[in-house]
Amino acid sequence: MVTRTEATFFPPIPEAQRWLKGVDFPADRPLINLSQAAPADPPPAPMRAAMAEMLEDPASHLYGPVLGLPALREALAADWARQYGGTVASAQVGITAGCNQAFAATIAATCGEGDEVILPVPWYFNHKMWLDMSGVRAVPLTCGATLVPDPEDARTLITPRTRAIVLVSPNNPCGVEYPAEVLEGFHDLCAEAGIRLIVDETYRDFDSRRGAPHALLTRADWDRTLVQLYSFSKAYRLTGHRVGAVIGQPELLHQIEKFQDTVAICAPSLGQRAALWGLENLGQWKAEQREEILDRRAAIEEHFAPLAARGWRLLGCGAYFAYIEHPFAEGSATLAPRLVREAGALILPATMFTPEGDPSGDRQFRVAFANTDRAGIAEFARRLAQVDGPLAAPGGAA
Amino acid sequence: MVTRTEATFFPPIPEAQRWLKGVDFPADRPLINLSQAAPADPPPAPMRAAMAEMLEDPASHLYGPVLGLPALREALAADWARQYGGTVASAQVGITAGCNQAFAATIAATCGEGDEVILPVPWYFNHKMWLDMSGVRAVPLTCGATLVPDPEDARTLITPRTRAIVLVSPNNPCGVEYPAEVLEGFHDLCAEAGIRLIVDETYRDFDSRRGAPHALLTRADWDRTLVQLYSFSKAYRLTGHRVGAVIGQPELLHQIEKFQDTVAICAPSLGQRAALWGLENLGQWKAEQREEILDRRAAIEEHFAPLAARGWRLLGCGAYFAYIEHPFAEGSATLAPRLVREAGALILPATMFTPEGDPSGDRQFRVAFANTDRAGIAEFARRLAQVDGPLAAPGGAA
Ligand SMILES: Cc1ncc(COP(=O)(O)O)c(C=O)c1O
Ligand SMILES: Cc1ncc(COP(=O)(O)O)c(C=O)c1O
Repeated sequence: MVTRTEATFFPPIPEAQRWLKGVDFPADRPLINLSQAAPADPPPAPMRAAMAEMLEDPASHLYGPVLGLPALREALAADWARQYGGTVASAQVGITAGCNQAFAATIAATCGEGDEVILPVPWYFNHKMWLDMSGVRAVPLTCGATLVPDPEDARTLITPRTRAIVLVSPNNPCGVEYPAEVLEGFHDLCAEAGIRLIVDETYRDFDSRRGAPHALLTRADWDRTLVQLYSFSKAYRLTGHRVGAVIGQPELLHQIEKFQDTVAICAPSLGQRAALWGLENLGQWKAEQREEILDRRAAIEEHFAPLAARGWRLLGCGAYFAYIEHPFAEGSATLAPRLVREAGALILPATMFTPEGDPSGDRQFRVAFANTDRAGIAEFARRLAQVDGPLAAPGGAA
Repeated sequence: MVTRTEATFFPPIPEAQRWLKGVDFPADRPLINLSQAAPADPPPAPMRAAMAEMLEDPASHLYGPVLGLPALREALAADWARQYGGTVASAQVGITAGCNQAFAATIAATCGEGDEVILPVPWYFNHKMWLDMSGVRAVPLTCGATLVPDPEDARTLITPRTRAIVLVSPNNPCGVEYPAEVLEGFHDLCAEAGIRLIVDETYRDFDSRRGAPHALLTRADWDRTLVQLYSFSKAYRLTGHRVGAVIGQPELLHQIEKFQDTVAICAPSLGQRAALWGLENLGQWKAEQREEILDRRAAIEEHFAPLAARGWRLLGCGAYFAYIEHPFAEGSATLAPRLVREAGALILPATMFTPEGDPSGDRQFRVAFANTDRAGIAEFARRLAQVDGPLAAPGGAA
């Protein structure tokens, strides 16, 4: 007998944290922790001041509507319509306690036992974990060298049990921004097959491109196929307050209401108010944050160029993440704790983002670089350059 | 094809809210809403002030450990050991985003598709909904006139697929406090059968009895069988901040960590700090709150005694809830919206807490009286006394 949780693996981040145990990091060479994609700073002072005021509104402490504060649903709908063009009604927006929960609720409303969902590889581990726990088969979609999935490859994987294709753009773990045409190809495919296209846009505020990343919302009946997932965690530094969103069909949200009522009751009331305040007041600040993250991305590119001579390769880079290939004979899961000990750097091996036995898992790493600044990135690259060991056979990489 | 959410019903509280639409409540006869068990007031001023200070600690805004703030786990373990006797370690405490989530996570870590869980009837609707959504069969356990389940009745329902028995004490929806011997009988039964005993103690701070409600934690190896669920929502008026707990076996919590990581990432960081502050500072205040709720309970008993002449019966009463029987020929699901229109009172029909076709569902109601004061309770009883209609045939009640 296998329980729902036994059907999946242990969460990677606490797992990786255990590699730090018993390792000393001298004061002049502190740990560089690039394992988790999370801002290390609190929200800006004006938002904190606004939150302190909100504490005097009793409603900030009470249960709210299951699908979220009406004013927040409305503001996000307006923001969405402005950013993507097209029309988005507040009835097409549901608020969840974070974007992970938005995914869980969407899958619960879309799939039953034995159904299938297509996930590009490498995947976001929590997506895979939730599918495992839901009794849904995650069908891996290989991406090739560009790390961008191809709708025509996905087409061959669709069966009568397929309920959805899930995309993350900008991507976690790869950092790649999917071209608009690719998203449009996937939308066509899903509409034709009568399945959902679920697009996790947690990192959309850090996309390097100007304007909307796709035109899907300008299509008639977009919500019959498309479901977008969003997070207030990164863009507004509200990770600890747990606020995310699902943008999709009102009928889908009505189903999602069952899951939310039972698992969450509602997203935290104070966090929702803070998210609303952010939407209304932090546009300029968010634009500056984006510039800062784009500058860090540029720093990764600069510092990885010389690392090529030592066999390191930068495969993808954008939003919060770089996806890199290492030159060594050993697998990334063994190399990762060695990097902690020898380089004082914590990054996650690609085995945490790939199906068991996938050879790319052994060769690659995800670097959550947004957590550090230019100096930290330079130091990280310097430390990687100093790591030694038996090299992989040429051409041994996936 | 049935999705996980299609496998269950729509949440009762938003459903009941819809009965209010289009009904006018004159200013001198406002709606008495006894549908939801939720404090209507914010936490006390010193706690709000402490929370405002916490906003200046960056960690209040950031992700925290998946299973909760170590200091909160420790403080709750100590509080638990003090209240129940026995030993409770912080490794036996996990923090969740509310007690509903504690239940969902516990079931995910205990059951797989096609398993069975025994639930006394009437049940807490979100428990039933989560079992439905998890592909777990809820096996109804009939309680009889006392509304207290009997372990010997439960014994006859255990099959090779049974994974747990769930009890809620003080009970939602019935208000009954289960005697210590009953809980002990269930613990013996579950230990013998090798299944979990899950006890939801959301309302334990409002128990009318002095001292521990049971001695289960003084048993050796209690955590091999017992899992307790707790909520900071009611006792500390933190409903909107979403903090609850699971108290159980560390191995179980390690499994639960997968669910929490994927569905919640962590419970809200500020809420957890507020809960900790409450544990450390609100002991006296909580005792006063309990007295107030016990006084409201006494008011329900006083005001229902004369209603007997009109055929109303008080079946159970305690913590936040009264469970009552109405005298009319119509079913409670039809009577409920009529009570909104004719009595200006919203209470939930027992059909929302019972299996389809259970005759008690038609005859009974849950009254969440904690939301109103003595005057409100008196007015509620007065309005019920004025309701008229064809009466049920004598002996027609379940
Ligand atoms: C792709 C992706 N989706 C969802 C999330 C979850 O974010 P939230 O904090 O909103 O639950 C993350 C966070 O790392 C993420 O990377
Ligand atoms: C029996 C029971 N369990 C759990 C809960 C959920 O409480 P929380 O707000 O902690 O999720 C409630 C709330 O009404 C309840 O009555």
